[in-house]
Amino acid sequence: MPEPHADRRSRLRAHCAGTGSDAALITRPANIHYLAGCAPAGAVLLVGPAEDILVRPGDLPADTAVKHPEDLRLHALSDTGGDPAVAAADLAAAAGAEGLAVEEHHLTVARHREVHSVAPGLRLADLGRAVEQQRLVKDDEEIACLRIAAEIADQALGELLESILVGRTERHLALELDRRLVDHGAEGPAFPTSVGTGPNSGRAAHVPTDRRVEEGDFLTVGLGARYRGYRCEIGRTFVIGAAPDAWQIELYDLVFAAQRAGREALVPGAGYRDVDRAARQILDSAGHGEGLAPWTGHGVGLEIDEDPKLTPAAMGKLDACVPVTVEPGVHLPGRGGVRIDDTLVVRPVVDGGPELLTITTKELLAL
Amino acid sequence: MPEPHADRRSRLRAHCAGTGSDAALITRPANIHYLAGCAPAGAVLLVGPAEDILVRPGDLPADTAVKHPEDLRLHALSDTGGDPAVAAADLAAAAGAEGLAVEEHHLTVARHREVHSVAPGLRLADLGRAVEQQRLVKDDEEIACLRIAAEIADQALGELLESILVGRTERHLALELDRRLVDHGAEGPAFPTSVGTGPNSGRAAHVPTDRRVEEGDFLTVGLGARYRGYRCEIGRTFVIGAAPDAWQIELYDLVFAAQRAGREALVPGAGYRDVDRAARQILDSAGHGEGLAPWTGHGVGLEIDEDPKLTPAAMGKLDACVPVTVEPGVHLPGRGGVRIDDTLVVRPVVDGGPELLTITTKELLAL
Repeated sequence: MPEPHADRRSRLRAHCAGTGSDAALITRPANIHYLAGCAPAGAVLLVGPAEDILVRPGDLPADTAVKHPEDLRLHALSDTGGDPAVAAADLAAAAGAEGLAVEEHHLTVARHREVHSVAPGLRLADLGRAVEQQRLVKDDEEIACLRIAAEIADQALGELLESILVGRTERHLALELDRRLVDHGAEGPAFPTSVGTGPNSGRAAHVPTDRRVEEGDFLTVGLGARYRGYRCEIGRTFVIGAAPDAWQIELYDLVFAAQRAGREALVPGAGYRDVDRAARQILDSAGHGEGLAPWTGHGVGLEIDEDPKLTPAAMGKLDACVPVTVEPGVHLPGRGGVRIDDTLVVRPVVDGGPELLTITTKELLAL
Repeated sequence: MPEPHADRRSRLRAHCAGTGSDAALITRPANIHYLAGCAPAGAVLLVGPAEDILVRPGDLPADTAVKHPEDLRLHALSDTGGDPAVAAADLAAAAGAEGLAVEEHHLTVARHREVHSVAPGLRLADLGRAVEQQRLVKDDEEIACLRIAAEIADQALGELLESILVGRTERHLALELDRRLVDHGAEGPAFPTSVGTGPNSGRAAHVPTDRRVEEGDFLTVGLGARYRGYRCEIGRTFVIGAAPDAWQIELYDLVFAAQRAGREALVPGAGYRDVDRAARQILDSAGHGEGLAPWTGHGVGLEIDEDPKLTPAAMGKLDACVPVTVEPGVHLPGRGGVRIDDTLVVRPVVDGGPELLTITTKELLAL
């Protein structure tokens, strides 16, 4: 079996050859990570024409170590070496490249101009989102990383639920979750951990405040772990105190039903918009259509918010081995709300359907 | 006194008028924050021709609140509204703009093309780093924010020093510092908190590992707080145990002397490279020239690494009211090392010289 990163670069090289470029300049960090197995700060990756080269900026201390695959040449600029993208274009031209595909959705106008001026003979083309396209369907190793990331998030969340919550602030609970994620082996949080209580519950990406948890609150937690660069996401809503109110049970059941419908719609070949609709229409017909987030879920991987987007207008169909979140939520201004968020991998029905990575219970727990 | 953000936008408008553009499209988040007082995720700022407009993307939940100055119009795109930069160009054209200055060092090639295609009659020009230039010299309010940020970092560090350190991992100490920063009112760390022990001490931006603090170690800590968007930086090195070794005292005294020389070189009119040289030559003549970081310090503000850069090749001279770090360090591979890092504001000698914001002692403490 070929080394996975080398294999990914071969596929990219074939794509470029098909569009008339014999080299590609990769500047977007997550794409560099995907193709090279690492993405040192400020580095760029030159794929082809003869060899693949990771070009590092010079303004790093000499003792900064970089782990990189052995089949990649490492080229470190000197202290005054300037922009690695420009140096990479120079290397491409020197190696005889005629056409260089660049990531126009990431490269700035100023850098593009400098790349062009250092190697005016090089025909610059747009690589577009070719690497992002390659990243959509994950291989076994990537899914294994996501599985571990999800397990870490489940553990961190599980421990929090065993502790006393009343009286503690959203901010402190979020920090404690961050610490537990790292305790269990995460490189760090996959995204800013969100904790919302009472009127803040149920909001997407709520930034934790100094509000303290009170009896009777809804408590919404959103967190994820980063493991070997891969990021997962889990969100749960709990109720604080002995017994939830009737409106809380009703709202929870509704969001749970919407989330389950979204999960069940995850089959290879399903349209992105169909998954969104499955969840959305349940909330919509209950009268909550107005304030809904424009997405029901999204891909995850080396970034927390990747393709595909599960939105009403999204074009495209799910493939097997695409990990996505399903995360509907309802927030009632002034009262709070419910979000339930899982990371799953799309699998064919014959293989048992979608693989749930985040396994913390979705019963309404009273804590 | 005019509202500071409106005043900053007026100065930018004057700059643009001088270069033939009657409007500017600001896409870089820190620049938006500087000019608008906030920078909602994905938003862009249109300055002129008639009014200033903050354009927000549509793919946010409806309940996401944005605080923004009252003299700015807020324009929120619909769910399917696309790129705010494109919408802003459309608004500029509709308002009669003829020339639009864009941040070519931030805008991607793909966005630039879309901006051009939505308003082909608009003459696009390069704004360059005009806003970054404006951001160099800080006003009293900005310096007040930095002062508070530094105070928070000093407090977090001071509390850590009172706790038991031996046996704890770099990773846990870093997480504890993060928690203490937030406890004392920071919005979060200004940058990833760095803790290095033993052989890891003295390295710039060392990523905390699971190594535990041992007797006899050097312990290097680098942290900063973010307060109202403003970021400061402090770095200290301590020795663990009863008494430092002779080599530790010698190395510490050397780095301390270099850092003091750098601080004392901070006068209005001093060349960036002269400040660097003042610190660097002390380490250099002691035989540590090889492994030194390429910079001795850098500006701080809404970003942790702003202009000016204090490097051997930097062009330019310091102005009063420019906050910078002075942070020389020496790392001996396999043994460890020393870094000492302060945030200071350049002030004229008649005003008492550089204002030290990070006041934690720089004596070599044995903890």
